[in-house]
Amino acid sequence: MSLRYTLDAMTRGVNGFLAALIVAHDGIPIDEVTSRQGGFDVQVLTVEYAAVLKEIKRAVTVISMGDLEEVSITTSSSCVVVRVVNNDVFTVLIMKNDGDIGKGRYRLRLASLEIMKELA
Amino acid sequence: MSLRYTLDAMTRGVNGFLAALIVAHDGIPIDEVTSRQGGFDVQVLTVEYAAVLKEIKRAVTVISMGDLEEVSITTSSSCVVVRVVNNDVFTVLIMKNDGDIGKGRYRLRLASLEIMKELA
Repeated sequence: MSLRYTLDAMTRGVNGFLAALIVAHDGIPIDEVTSRQGGFDVQVLTVEYAAVLKEIKRAVTVISMGDLEEVSITTSSSCVVVRVVNNDVFTVLIMKNDGDIGKGRYRLRLASLEIMKELA
Repeated sequence: MSLRYTLDAMTRGVNGFLAALIVAHDGIPIDEVTSRQGGFDVQVLTVEYAAVLKEIKRAVTVISMGDLEEVSITTSSSCVVVRVVNNDVFTVLIMKNDGDIGKGRYRLRLASLEIMKELA
């Protein structure tokens, strides 16, 4: 299966879905799927989340609390779930704040395992 | 009610609870409750999470995706939920990775509203 197919299948039927991305750790997107309701700059977003993830990885290492698996950021309008795939790649799922957050997070976890295999 | 009482009530009956804190944005703890199973340096942790929160707030502003409400960080051993109380204060709930994460997150949301009122 292609990476795009995995992203597409992951987001199907998830209410409030805005965008799903596979991103390299320097913030450059490898593949992406966006809904028409997005209204944000995906390129700015991936660069910013790559910087956030780097800072969190550093903090987690300092605190010695295991390997980073997932970061979820909720704002007044959106929920962004970031999942570490391997040392070089992470996945991002962007949803509306009132969307199917639980379902989306679950699907992202399964899709990230698929993507890890596809990139291996 | 005191801040300590609110933290205590929040964590009662939450399996996998390790620590709950009210922290100023410079990383200095205002109050805290820890379980005996902790095994980490609370002071280092709060300073690191204050830095992480600052970076995330910056990113969320750049992306223009609403006001930051909650950040959840899952590692191979733990889950840390950070909730913004007001501009100066945030709450932190630290749990084991296999603990009652959903229940803990729900309780933290309610307790943060209480704490906001107490600090107003």
